[in-house]
Amino acid sequence: MQMPEPTSPPTRVSACEVAASPRVRVSVAGASGYAGGELVRILANHPSVEIVHLAAGKQAGKRLDAVFPSLGNLAGVAAARLADRTLVESDFERLAAESDAVFVSLPHGLSLPAVPQLLEGGVRVVDLGGDFRLKDVDAFQQWYQLEHTAPELLAGAVYGMPELFREQIATAQLVANPGCYPTVATLALLPLAEAGLLSGTLVIVDAKSGPSGAGRKSDVAFSYAEINESATAYKPFAHRHQPEMEQNLRAAARQSGNDASTVVRFVPQLVPMTRGILATCYATVSAHQCQAIQQLYRDRYAKEPFVRFLENGAMPATKNVAGSNFAEVAVNADSETGLVVAIAAIDNLGKGAASAAVANFNLQWGFAETTGLSAVSLFP
Amino acid sequence: MQMPEPTSPPTRVSACEVAASPRVRVSVAGASGYAGGELVRILANHPSVEIVHLAAGKQAGKRLDAVFPSLGNLAGVAAARLADRTLVESDFERLAAESDAVFVSLPHGLSLPAVPQLLEGGVRVVDLGGDFRLKDVDAFQQWYQLEHTAPELLAGAVYGMPELFREQIATAQLVANPGCYPTVATLALLPLAEAGLLSGTLVIVDAKSGPSGAGRKSDVAFSYAEINESATAYKPFAHRHQPEMEQNLRAAARQSGNDASTVVRFVPQLVPMTRGILATCYATVSAHQCQAIQQLYRDRYAKEPFVRFLENGAMPATKNVAGSNFAEVAVNADSETGLVVAIAAIDNLGKGAASAAVANFNLQWGFAETTGLSAVSLFP
Amino acid sequence: MQMPEPTSPPTRVSACEVAASPRVRVSVAGASGYAGGELVRILANHPSVEIVHLAAGKQAGKRLDAVFPSLGNLAGVAAARLADRTLVESDFERLAAESDAVFVSLPHGLSLPAVPQLLEGGVRVVDLGGDFRLKDVDAFQQWYQLEHTAPELLAGAVYGMPELFREQIATAQLVANPGCYPTVATLALLPLAEAGLLSGTLVIVDAKSGPSGAGRKSDVAFSYAEINESATAYKPFAHRHQPEMEQNLRAAARQSGNDASTVVRFVPQLVPMTRGILATCYATVSAHQCQAIQQLYRDRYAKEPFVRFLENGAMPATKNVAGSNFAEVAVNADSETGLVVAIAAIDNLGKGAASAAVANFNLQWGFAETTGLSAVSLFP
Amino acid sequence: MQMPEPTSPPTRVSACEVAASPRVRVSVAGASGYAGGELVRILANHPSVEIVHLAAGKQAGKRLDAVFPSLGNLAGVAAARLADRTLVESDFERLAAESDAVFVSLPHGLSLPAVPQLLEGGVRVVDLGGDFRLKDVDAFQQWYQLEHTAPELLAGAVYGMPELFREQIATAQLVANPGCYPTVATLALLPLAEAGLLSGTLVIVDAKSGPSGAGRKSDVAFSYAEINESATAYKPFAHRHQPEMEQNLRAAARQSGNDASTVVRFVPQLVPMTRGILATCYATVSAHQCQAIQQLYRDRYAKEPFVRFLENGAMPATKNVAGSNFAEVAVNADSETGLVVAIAAIDNLGKGAASAAVANFNLQWGFAETTGLSAVSLFP
Repeated sequence: MQMPEPTSPPTRVSACEVAASPRVRVSVAGASGYAGGELVRILANHPSVEIVHLAAGKQAGKRLDAVFPSLGNLAGVAAARLADRTLVESDFERLAAESDAVFVSLPHGLSLPAVPQLLEGGVRVVDLGGDFRLKDVDAFQQWYQLEHTAPELLAGAVYGMPELFREQIATAQLVANPGCYPTVATLALLPLAEAGLLSGTLVIVDAKSGPSGAGRKSDVAFSYAEINESATAYKPFAHRHQPEMEQNLRAAARQSGNDASTVVRFVPQLVPMTRGILATCYATVSAHQCQAIQQLYRDRYAKEPFVRFLENGAMPATKNVAGSNFAEVAVNADSETGLVVAIAAIDNLGKGAASAAVANFNLQWGFAETTGLSAVSLFP
Repeated sequence: MQMPEPTSPPTRVSACEVAASPRVRVSVAGASGYAGGELVRILANHPSVEIVHLAAGKQAGKRLDAVFPSLGNLAGVAAARLADRTLVESDFERLAAESDAVFVSLPHGLSLPAVPQLLEGGVRVVDLGGDFRLKDVDAFQQWYQLEHTAPELLAGAVYGMPELFREQIATAQLVANPGCYPTVATLALLPLAEAGLLSGTLVIVDAKSGPSGAGRKSDVAFSYAEINESATAYKPFAHRHQPEMEQNLRAAARQSGNDASTVVRFVPQLVPMTRGILATCYATVSAHQCQAIQQLYRDRYAKEPFVRFLENGAMPATKNVAGSNFAEVAVNADSETGLVVAIAAIDNLGKGAASAAVANFNLQWGFAETTGLSAVSLFP
Repeated sequence: MQMPEPTSPPTRVSACEVAASPRVRVSVAGASGYAGGELVRILANHPSVEIVHLAAGKQAGKRLDAVFPSLGNLAGVAAARLADRTLVESDFERLAAESDAVFVSLPHGLSLPAVPQLLEGGVRVVDLGGDFRLKDVDAFQQWYQLEHTAPELLAGAVYGMPELFREQIATAQLVANPGCYPTVATLALLPLAEAGLLSGTLVIVDAKSGPSGAGRKSDVAFSYAEINESATAYKPFAHRHQPEMEQNLRAAARQSGNDASTVVRFVPQLVPMTRGILATCYATVSAHQCQAIQQLYRDRYAKEPFVRFLENGAMPATKNVAGSNFAEVAVNADSETGLVVAIAAIDNLGKGAASAAVANFNLQWGFAETTGLSAVSLFP
Repeated sequence: MQMPEPTSPPTRVSACEVAASPRVRVSVAGASGYAGGELVRILANHPSVEIVHLAAGKQAGKRLDAVFPSLGNLAGVAAARLADRTLVESDFERLAAESDAVFVSLPHGLSLPAVPQLLEGGVRVVDLGGDFRLKDVDAFQQWYQLEHTAPELLAGAVYGMPELFREQIATAQLVANPGCYPTVATLALLPLAEAGLLSGTLVIVDAKSGPSGAGRKSDVAFSYAEINESATAYKPFAHRHQPEMEQNLRAAARQSGNDASTVVRFVPQLVPMTRGILATCYATVSAHQCQAIQQLYRDRYAKEPFVRFLENGAMPATKNVAGSNFAEVAVNADSETGLVVAIAAIDNLGKGAASAAVANFNLQWGFAETTGLSAVSLFP
């Protein structure tokens, strides 16, 4: 299958033309999951979107507000158009026929058959799953224990991290939205990777996540009583997001003309909070490079709309970004050992999934990257 | 002191005229507290507001993002205009001189001197504290253990619950924004009160609140380790919000031509969640009235933009409204005993404080009540 | 089936004879659930117990420490004898044959066939489920929607609340261990019921519970992300524990020679904490009775080993009793309206289930009621 | 000042002689803090302890149950002897005169004058603070920013980690109880250090802790609303426990005849749970050493009464050890990079403070190390 030509994006429009301009017809597949619900929450207030279909698997046929009471009866506010919506079957032909854009938010493996159908229908896709993120088919098959049935799409699929591939996203028909852990780890380390400071090194990523990242599912291990008051590690060095981090840091090095031989080892950990990931990343550089690192980060992130680089001892906190598309980043270097610790925080369902996907959609359609994403994190 | 004439409100404007129309110059006093921060968070995305001053007490002189990191470096999103703000001193003359509207979010007692200064300066005020809520000066002095130094303002102060006093708010120079507990209890019981079903009865309000309602303060009793994993009651029958609930239910009965002799007894309870109040309210009616109660609520709340009446066994949950201006309400009646239980949930910092204050501001200035309040609750 | 004669209890033994005295051979059916695990935790340190079998359903065949890692490898402490235990099948004949006493901690309905088998085998039983609590078979069948297949055992089954039936428990072969909500509500209201102050009245029980009371199960509704940061009600006036509360308060009145016509209405609520229930109970008495109520409670609870009556404004908190067999109780009366609010806190898995069951076992076997129950709640 | 001779320890006694044998007269200084309260909770059920004085600073004069309601009115259980206790002034002469042993649980710096007074009085001391942990006075003064006023005691002070110094503790008059972070990090890494695998390497310790470790204090930063739903780092590479970890790992290497040049870099992080620390520790070994590491840990911890070494993919979780003196440890090695991740979990107030202190007390007095420490962690 060849990647079809995307329909041409609308030209950029000002905030006030928006109301009058035609809205993009958008559907969401996997709308009953946590990332799917977060997509609906954001799209409900997006000025240039008309929500067409919300598709689900087992929950198809239920009213949206039975699945997400928080989306019920919004009469009177901007999201009123969601009232009385019913989740439809995941009929990808129909979604393709009646939508301009589709967000696919399904468990891994399920995008493999769905995405080709959507692309053939001519829609632009943001896929929130893992099926089109790894460029190396063998790596995919090893880490996901699945045969990749659409490898011909991988070359055209653009990895949806604007901080790495902003230009390519703008012309991509298929965007592979990053995993939550790779997003936060990559943002923590990006300036080092681009500067070549991670070339040939081992990078350790130690991440702490709330359980919503595991999805909305029946599982004793994710019940309140088991998660609350507990911190624990899982799958050390064996999580699927490890090769994705490696791919990102190598791409960043390569884009900057540096050697791309970084090796990543990743240990994810569950902590008792609903949303959020804090990633603490370690790498060793030569001592004299330590001086320049603050400046490296300051410069790199000065113009990124959604990255807040913290200085003077301020530390990233998941609470500061929950419900938003922001990331917080800080870095410290120890001149005695050359050890650098780069720390970043995101909302795993926001910058780690749904709001990042909307930013990618915005870029695909020529809207300002920040459209519909002005929400400030709740505090406290 | 006499209540001065308010400056005339702008005529109502459509969504798209907004961008061009002059913005209301708004200041916040008490901007470093939780309700203050929530006001800033909402106002940052309000299309018709220009934030002029953010005033604080001890925190004056600090940068806003040092006090609320979540409000830091919003470059690129709608709230960008907050970058680099510094909290100013609480100079009410200056606030009055340079603002059209001021939100006052101070501990009780502190609005007594501040509000008259602001009103004399001609600004419109929404006071989030308790100083101007109780119409009965003696009751205020008894429950707050304070002398009321501006009793002449009470007659003109409008209690800021749109569900009760929407029209009066629109022309009020001073709005007394309701307490969090009275808001949720009144919404739970309003249809019963208006129908006269609470006349001459004892109403019990049993409320469960997260600790953010107590404000942002140094207190061992509110430390994480003491609050977490604990549910406890405090001040049974002795909380200041009890007479405020009584005043509201009596006003509702009186407005509908019913006897206004309801008595309220209130037991607040702390539970381990950051935001949210669930109020469970009990009253006894005659058995034959039980049948009609669902319909009473359905009719009453059909057109309220921010009240979601739940039926068919759905139950209000604080999680469904956190971060929004919505309230959820459900009611059950037991025909054997005549006991009615009316349950409501709000976000204590949202509908219980800041977003309610913005709705009042919208009414005062002729904007649609929902302007800037389209946020849907985060879930999960 | 007739209730067989229990084997005669050992005579009471002093703490130091204990080590030498023969241990009671104890088994637990339902050992993989939360109450079952709590039983094992307590019994592991009980000086007069030998744990024989730990039986389970689906988890049979697994090692105990695979199901409860906290019970793993206790070598060197008193509980060492649990190392390497494997959960066995729920073969009640075998449990009866090889045990002196069995704790049955199964979902309701499953004790109906199991308990008769155990009793016939001559063992003494503490049943933690609801099958033998309600004396009225019709009420059981209505509230549990199940046919009662062993109604002949109800007369001999003793309701296991020592505060109500201490003497009867001592000679009971079958103890029906109370439900968690009825325990806390009954302790809150017992002195009023015994004094006849609840005769002919409507009592409201408003309870707040952590989700561990619902058991260890796969259910999205009990997942961390859905429970955390939320307070919500469920089954208002329709929870199975409502008739059990009524039965207790009526029994207490009757035992004291008072009219037993109390009616209870119960609203349970879920709050985000792992363990604990706070019950806030309301009843109206005549105003002159309000004076005497503190003294009533003080006297009533002076000699109860596990009830801590709080005065001078101290309020029960679930954190103060978590992990222990204690209950905290306080009471306030409003002389204007006659409204009494009685508040109690317990650990739903402790005094509301497992530690209460061990106290019943102690009474059945002639041990001091407090044996093995000296644990003080963790704080914080 | 010279370290005086300790009074000779009682000979070891069996469990049943205990009741008859004379109890050790024990006092606690700093009894109103979290570690102090945990000490009282444990000592209340210790069979060989008579609690003499509970001393406090600002809280002196208050009843114990006003400060810790969970310790109130324990009549009928083993801890009954605490009823009606009042916290006394911190008069160290009096504590020395009337006690055989004193636990000192004070903010750092305050043990410097207190401990010498106690030692001169002939009592045996377990000091839970940081003043006598670092053997290097200069390091103490640099990291604590305090002059050390009793350096002559450092040589005799024994670092109270039985896994490292069991024999020395048994004869020590002064035990310096380890810090919470060093305890968990040392247990994670001890087998590697003893095997010489950390010689000349950089070790990274990434720890996640609940806020109770910061003590019981009024601080907005530790309030529920700020801590809940947030994960954040603090003091990367700059926490006082970093040199203590280094000292321990070097001592372990030296004791085994290995080179003691390990360098530690430590990043502590706060996560929203009351108790518990999870430490994730990284070091690089040569690839061929990876094979042997599981066996190294298995052997090393086979006989440690309070260390649970987990295999077959089981992972340490703070919930599994909360309220107990247990530690859980697991280790994984990556043969490709040689990276080892060693993970351990403890209760910061248990094995990280109070129960560890009681184990040290047991060793000092010749009791079995596990006496009074048989509590199994609450689950869930």
